[in-house]
Amino acid sequence: MPVFLSTTDAGFEAAFVRLLSAKREDAPDVDAAVAGIIADVRDRGDAAVIELTAKFDRLELTPTTMAFSEAEIDAECAKVFDADRAALELAAERIRAYHTRQMPEDARWTDAAGAEIGWRWGPVDAAGLYVPGGLASYPSSVLMNAIPAKVAGVGRLVICCPTPGGAVNPLVLLAARLSGVDTVYRIGGAQAIAAMAYGTATIRPVDKITGPGNAFVAAAKRRVFGRVGIDMIAGPSEILVIADKDNDPDWIALDLLSQAEHDQSAQSILVTDDAAFGQAVAAAVEERLETLDRRDIAGASWRGYGAVIVTRDLDEAAALSNRVAPEHLELCVADPDALAERITHAGAIFLGRWTPEAIGDYVGGPNHVLPTARSARFSSGLSVMDFLKRTTIAKMTPGALAAIGPAAERLAISESLEAHGLSVRVRLDQLNRDDVT
Amino acid sequence: MPVFLSTTDAGFEAAFVRLLSAKREDAPDVDAAVAGIIADVRDRGDAAVIELTAKFDRLELTPTTMAFSEAEIDAECAKVFDADRAALELAAERIRAYHTRQMPEDARWTDAAGAEIGWRWGPVDAAGLYVPGGLASYPSSVLMNAIPAKVAGVGRLVICCPTPGGAVNPLVLLAARLSGVDTVYRIGGAQAIAAMAYGTATIRPVDKITGPGNAFVAAAKRRVFGRVGIDMIAGPSEILVIADKDNDPDWIALDLLSQAEHDQSAQSILVTDDAAFGQAVAAAVEERLETLDRRDIAGASWRGYGAVIVTRDLDEAAALSNRVAPEHLELCVADPDALAERITHAGAIFLGRWTPEAIGDYVGGPNHVLPTARSARFSSGLSVMDFLKRTTIAKMTPGALAAIGPAAERLAISESLEAHGLSVRVRLDQLNRDDVT
Repeated sequence: MPVFLSTTDAGFEAAFVRLLSAKREDAPDVDAAVAGIIADVRDRGDAAVIELTAKFDRLELTPTTMAFSEAEIDAECAKVFDADRAALELAAERIRAYHTRQMPEDARWTDAAGAEIGWRWGPVDAAGLYVPGGLASYPSSVLMNAIPAKVAGVGRLVICCPTPGGAVNPLVLLAARLSGVDTVYRIGGAQAIAAMAYGTATIRPVDKITGPGNAFVAAAKRRVFGRVGIDMIAGPSEILVIADKDNDPDWIALDLLSQAEHDQSAQSILVTDDAAFGQAVAAAVEERLETLDRRDIAGASWRGYGAVIVTRDLDEAAALSNRVAPEHLELCVADPDALAERITHAGAIFLGRWTPEAIGDYVGGPNHVLPTARSARFSSGLSVMDFLKRTTIAKMTPGALAAIGPAAERLAISESLEAHGLSVRVRLDQLNRDDVT
Repeated sequence: MPVFLSTTDAGFEAAFVRLLSAKREDAPDVDAAVAGIIADVRDRGDAAVIELTAKFDRLELTPTTMAFSEAEIDAECAKVFDADRAALELAAERIRAYHTRQMPEDARWTDAAGAEIGWRWGPVDAAGLYVPGGLASYPSSVLMNAIPAKVAGVGRLVICCPTPGGAVNPLVLLAARLSGVDTVYRIGGAQAIAAMAYGTATIRPVDKITGPGNAFVAAAKRRVFGRVGIDMIAGPSEILVIADKDNDPDWIALDLLSQAEHDQSAQSILVTDDAAFGQAVAAAVEERLETLDRRDIAGASWRGYGAVIVTRDLDEAAALSNRVAPEHLELCVADPDALAERITHAGAIFLGRWTPEAIGDYVGGPNHVLPTARSARFSSGLSVMDFLKRTTIAKMTPGALAAIGPAAERLAISESLEAHGLSVRVRLDQLNRDDVT
């Protein structure tokens, strides 16, 4: 059974802290193995990638067959049902529209001292997206990673996706095509991350790597960080639903289960100001768990990490949610906008009874790659910003340097950085001479 | 002697790649020691911090004396010369004005389907800044880290700064006060990072940790990443100057030396379209190295990692600079704005002959915490964004759900995520019933 807590219980605070700090994932320590794989790929390039793919994915590749050809992609895309294609196209269009609005603006202005300062944004040259194979090979994640990169203006965009035994999900290739991906490689694991970070004879290196993966992929991303940029290392999915009693318990139960079915380490929490409603939702979850396809996974998640928390009122619910800083937050209440004003930490907020979190996974527009494990306290979901970087700009006129240069010189001297001070001083001296002549 | 290269040399490409890939820093492997320190602080809290401070900083603290009192800060600030205070105040004011312009805007709009989507930004609750002790204890870095945090709206801002033997730089405390820092702790090293990440009885935990430090601090930041957010792990400083022949060689020599004097692992590169000018700058560097206070450090950096590269023209210079992706880039040419258009990767650009990089270290306004080691290819300098996070927003009306919900359901089914699809379906069914009745 999931945890049932009430904020009026004597032991509530301790129980809530236990819930907050429960370790849900025991990632195996594969770091040494991953270090070996990366070294091997750096050393032997294509040959290492081909051998490791034969070993882990039971697939014999050559440098020529590492990437899908256009004809192969055409053939796979042709297998997709029209309704699936239309749904994917709608999702792509909405994600593109949303992320286009995220593009930040350049700025440059002249201040009172006469200095021109500002910044400008530019895309990374090349990005690589990791797409897991098998069960967790989600075409929606291809859209969510690739479209922000293209919107940002990334010049070259590649995917690495393992195809164990040669099996591929046609929807993944269609999503890649709809997103404008240039090349899709049939490789996975730490070897794919190493190849994208360091390059091989066949695979050109990229500047940024994003996308989810297993423990090997996560460890490899940590190791190549610095050589290339990476996105976050995502943990198991989470949802927190704040719901009043005027919801259909079955709707809320399904919302909770839509995270639970991802992974047995996922976490679903209901916070409600009505104890009877909380019980009704828990009963509805049990009923749905009798028939759900993924009932083993969802049931293990709900029993292991699920929780129903009863609060005195909705303000208290918001305060608890902020301590959780959930990846996904649904506000199923009469005035969700008012409640949202009280939310300080959440990856994504879904407002009102007609906004199930699953909308955000596919077609809402916002990104579904979001901060997990309470990291919404300090980090954001994936966006165009992940594929852009900012260059700051400064341009002094002689007058501006005369106005602010002496302060720079003074501070340089106070920090014992003589050359810093002199680099300003020689220019100020020239200005003084110019004035005299 | 530094490397002299010309793009017309037969061996240029190989030599340039060697320059690009030269490993300038051999950080000692302190990870095991750091893991032990972090575990000790998590385990024993204040007692561990106090013991480690006695051991590493030769300073006996109690929980009460861990933080500077207001009276102690007053007394230290009173020691600062008026001219230094005025310079620090000017710097603070300019940094604040620049970073205030960086504040991103919230957005929310209703799209054609009737869905309300958008995002909003909010600050992290608490941030901790690490400030090194001793020689590298720069008051300017306090401003550059603390002011963006305050502009972002961070609620609580603390500093950890070791004071070996009790020695403190009054300018650091004044910079902290000018920036609005709440508390300054006299602790340093991995124990300070652990205390800020996990908290002790005396030190409340923070959500984000920024600021430079030695190998122990860097290793500790890597280890607490995920528990809290961190900024980049900065490497040795770098400058690349693109200069035509119409510069005073001594000015350019001083600009190169202003990075070289930071650290013997720093790197200074001159790229010029005039070989004779390149020689003249190299000669000017040697002359300045005879008298510079930090000539040992600057000389070691220049001889070990310095370079003069002669190009056919300025376009070629820009292309080479983009391959370096330097932390600092000076464009000392007749039309720096035109040349800047060709720059795709740089942490900060300094335009024209009157903008020595040192201006940017102190009073320009832009941040001086910038991406090193070629990471300007994919990352940006410190900004208010480092202390903010974005929450995405989605709100469906019944009509919006009817318009885009079926596509979400279809994609959920294609990904074998039944509960996702059902969470949409039960709501669509309700809408259908509502229509019928």
